Amino acid sequence: MRYLKKIGKLTTITYKQIGIIHTPFTSLENMPIQPGAAKSIEGKIEIYPEYSKGLQDLEGFSHIILLYHFHQAGPSRLKVTPFLDQQERGIFATRAPVRPNPIGFSVLELVSREENILIVKNVDILDGTPIIDIKPYVEKFDHPLGSKAGWLEGKTGKLNTTTADSRFRNNLPGSK
Amino acid sequence: MRYLKKIGKLTTITYKQIGIIHTPFTSLENMPIQPGAAKSIEGKIEIYPEYSKGLQDLEGFSHIILLYHFHQAGPSRLKVTPFLDQQERGIFATRAPVRPNPIGFSVLELVSREENILIVKNVDILDGTPIIDIKPYVEKFDHPLGSKAGWLEGKTGKLNTTTADSRFRNNLPGSK
Repeated sequence: MRYLKKIGKLTTITYKQIGIIHTPFTSLENMPIQPGAAKSIEGKIEIYPEYSKGLQDLEGFSHIILLYHFHQAGPSRLKVTPFLDQQERGIFATRAPVRPNPIGFSVLELVSREENILIVKNVDILDGTPIIDIKPYVEKFDHPLGSKAGWLEGKTGKLNTTTADSRFRNNLPGSK
Repeated sequence: MRYLKKIGKLTTITYKQIGIIHTPFTSLENMPIQPGAAKSIEGKIEIYPEYSKGLQDLEGFSHIILLYHFHQAGPSRLKVTPFLDQQERGIFATRAPVRPNPIGFSVLELVSREENILIVKNVDILDGTPIIDIKPYVEKFDHPLGSKAGWLEGKTGKLNTTTADSRFRNNLPGSK
């Protein structure tokens, strides 16, 4: 497959869906907004059988990095008012889905693997979301010491009492 | 832009390049294999001016999550022998670039922002790599406690003495 393509000044990058996640969340409204707020909620990742071999050895890791496509996100915006704030922020300074490239990122607890099926915990993801990559979470690679969280400092305490609403939803027929 | 497209059984997802990173690494050989092994190496992320507004407020964060396209990776494989190991592992249990979707992920230190230019540190990325997304790193969201690193347990100590070689490189003319 050719990934990169130039169309005038625009370069596009094309990936393929490698699986799907099944979760209890069939509607964006009232969903947890981050894995930390979705404690103990389980999901089932179904990787398509043709990629099954690539999952070998993943079960040794307690956590995975999941990359997925926000398939129900509305059109991209450069400024948004995030769920945890009252003022507009640049989209790249937020985790909102209405990004120029609507790619979602979550660190999830891996409960088990059975061939091409992964059971994961702390799921903050909509049912039916397309999966594009899975990586092992490695604290030594992925956890910088002493990080500062900008406008989010002091606001993450509200995680457990803040849920999503429809502000980033698309309006296509069939969307909930 | 329409992101999702169905072609028979295959669903493709098309994103756009939103910028480029400039780094000292013009060849895959001898590169650091993770940010932790690239301490103090600086890079310059140039986000295309049309997305500049989306970077507002990012400078409050000490670290960013960078998603990029491994443009020099060879064809995808489901089993690889990673740089830090002697035996084959499933690709999704590694961070190797020859993934079904060659998306790179690094947590980088953000030194400064000047309009659409970000100066970052601990860069383990090839010069000229296309950028597809930037997210703020938020410890509260992204750092699970007590994680276990599977086959990598006890092996990350070799990070600083292990560098990349050509095993995951493509063989296209012009690739180094």
